[in-house]
Amino acid sequence: LHPRTQLSRESIFAQMSRLAAQHGAINLGQGFPSNPPPDFLLEAARRAIGSVDQYTPPIGLPRLREAVAEDLGVSPEDVIITAGGTEALHALAEALYGPDDEVVMLEPYFDVYIPQARIAGAEPVMVPMQLTERWEVDLPALERAISVRTQAILLTNPYNPTGSVFSRAEAQRIVELARRHDLWIISDEVYDELYFGEPPVRFRELAPERVFTVGSAGKRLEATGWRIGWIVTPPGLAPQVAGMRQWSSFCSAAPLQAAVAEALPIARKEGFYQALRESYGRRKDLLEQGLRSLGLKTFSPAGTYFLTALLPGLEAQTLVREAKVAIIPGSAFYLHNPAPQGLFRLAFCKTSDEIEQALERLGHYL
Amino acid sequence: LHPRTQLSRESIFAQMSRLAAQHGAINLGQGFPSNPPPDFLLEAARRAIGSVDQYTPPIGLPRLREAVAEDLGVSPEDVIITAGGTEALHALAEALYGPDDEVVMLEPYFDVYIPQARIAGAEPVMVPMQLTERWEVDLPALERAISVRTQAILLTNPYNPTGSVFSRAEAQRIVELARRHDLWIISDEVYDELYFGEPPVRFRELAPERVFTVGSAGKRLEATGWRIGWIVTPPGLAPQVAGMRQWSSFCSAAPLQAAVAEALPIARKEGFYQALRESYGRRKDLLEQGLRSLGLKTFSPAGTYFLTALLPGLEAQTLVREAKVAIIPGSAFYLHNPAPQGLFRLAFCKTSDEIEQALERLGHYL
Ligand SMILES: CSCCC(=O)C(=O)O
Ligand SMILES: CSCCC(=O)C(=O)O
Repeated sequence: LHPRTQLSRESIFAQMSRLAAQHGAINLGQGFPSNPPPDFLLEAARRAIGSVDQYTPPIGLPRLREAVAEDLGVSPEDVIITAGGTEALHALAEALYGPDDEVVMLEPYFDVYIPQARIAGAEPVMVPMQLTERWEVDLPALERAISVRTQAILLTNPYNPTGSVFSRAEAQRIVELARRHDLWIISDEVYDELYFGEPPVRFRELAPERVFTVGSAGKRLEATGWRIGWIVTPPGLAPQVAGMRQWSSFCSAAPLQAAVAEALPIARKEGFYQALRESYGRRKDLLEQGLRSLGLKTFSPAGTYFLTALLPGLEAQTLVREAKVAIIPGSAFYLHNPAPQGLFRLAFCKTSDEIEQALERLGHYL
Repeated sequence: LHPRTQLSRESIFAQMSRLAAQHGAINLGQGFPSNPPPDFLLEAARRAIGSVDQYTPPIGLPRLREAVAEDLGVSPEDVIITAGGTEALHALAEALYGPDDEVVMLEPYFDVYIPQARIAGAEPVMVPMQLTERWEVDLPALERAISVRTQAILLTNPYNPTGSVFSRAEAQRIVELARRHDLWIISDEVYDELYFGEPPVRFRELAPERVFTVGSAGKRLEATGWRIGWIVTPPGLAPQVAGMRQWSSFCSAAPLQAAVAEALPIARKEGFYQALRESYGRRKDLLEQGLRSLGLKTFSPAGTYFLTALLPGLEAQTLVREAKVAIIPGSAFYLHNPAPQGLFRLAFCKTSDEIEQALERLGHYL
């Protein structure tokens, strides 16, 4: 096998879900909801099954490209449908960088970013976020990380795993940096509708000519296994990027594309995201208060369905076996720099019952 | 954008389907059936929607790995579920070759093979098949094409676009070559159940230690847009190859995986493939006799739902516009060597009505 397969170690999320199942643990690790997707999505899919079953164009089913464009206020010409956010990021890595290139990203980082960059031949350059009372991007360090080899800055907003959201001022300074050094920005916005304060800045609105946005129906509509995501490209670049995804999976699951096309406007019109935010807000508070009452330090998220906390002295592999709770160790999000001592990421996209039971188990264990 | 995006020209199949829709042409181009998938598959999917909606393990839903293994008589440990045959081939390209490597394949070739090899950094080395009264592999030329850089031989059986099937003797000689030069064999067997004579040889049975088999539920169960395929690896290699697909789309569409798991044993037990072969056999005869009665030379396929024919002096782009019939030009399947004059590939996975109408339109046009 090619040495590249050294990058094929099991994803931390897949691994913790496997261990959770194996040990009968409550899974606050991988980010997928315990609740089922909304009925309007399921009904649409049951109707599409048996009527939209063959290949769609690799760039996406036209009506889904239009629905995404309508939802985001962009042109359908700039929208590419992908097999989830993961394939969107993979296609962008292939389209934007190659050997001798560098891509700047923040630490903690989402795990697929590193192997995808390396498979494309590029080297990730990591800039650690500052963790004091909250997670903060270190803008001077970000600028220092940029070299003549840098092709792109890759970031997420809302940010997985920290749950932080860039302020408009921070986003503007990042965009200025990208302009000054003529870099692409890949903005992974799969949690775009999951925030607890102001709606997050959309990087594309600040610099449409250089921002690639990644989105996910799985995250928005609670169907992470359906593998329907998208890329919004700067004007004119969609065909070339779609050409890359064409060689990785040809097209996304056709009936599920049709279902998402039907569901996106319904979700918007019926206030589905608002209700989701309220529901997740309650579960965030439940988890956060529970951890605090165990005497643990938490960092309140402004978005995503993750929160970070310090559980000093604990070890994820032991925890899943002995406490029967699966959570993600902070070290999984660090490549070059050491993770803050005792850092873990906990998902609250689970039922309140699961969260309460996990807290109870953690309490006993501690 | 990275120069690699020069590989992102639109796939010939996507292009001809787009032109067919645009010009109201009958589409005998891209290989997807006009008939809907069987009810037992659709029913299983409607049940899975709303119950299997979140991430599965990247290597595949356990019950689908088991169903594929059971169907093929292999161990579930060696089965990886992918987003269609395309992603299976993509993962294998990434797992098996890199810069300075070569991969030997036959010409005419299936279009994704070349960009996938090149994205992985490898150079395809093309060996033209001989076309006299039938398509034949030139075994001495195949051996001459192998160099110290060769990592793998990539072939399909039944063979797209020629519709030919390797004889057992040919397959054995190819396997001997691979053994002698210590090469992997990637055997793209997505049309494994679509044959008109003897069942095709499964390369894996001849050399389980060096054959990677690619399969497709979309081709078998007439749901090409569902994107459920698989790889069977030599013993022990599945985790490393699955690691590669984990970074391209993480996992395949979860509810459709569950549906295929349910459908595979039903298809086998109820004689679905046998009925499919009979139905396709009739449509093959219809198309072939029709072309012959127009005075055209055809090469009778032993498998797949494609046949090749000589339509001298015709041009695919003109044909779709003027005759309103979309077919694939032979040149699309040739990289280094010239295509036989007037060669086209015609798909007969369409209804008898469509085939008859296409013949009529061709007749008028000629
Ligand atoms: C694609 S698996 C990871 C799911 C997820 O978004 C997370 O847990 O961070
Ligand atoms: C993945 S698009 C190509 C479909 C097909 O198998 C063909 O037409 O050859």
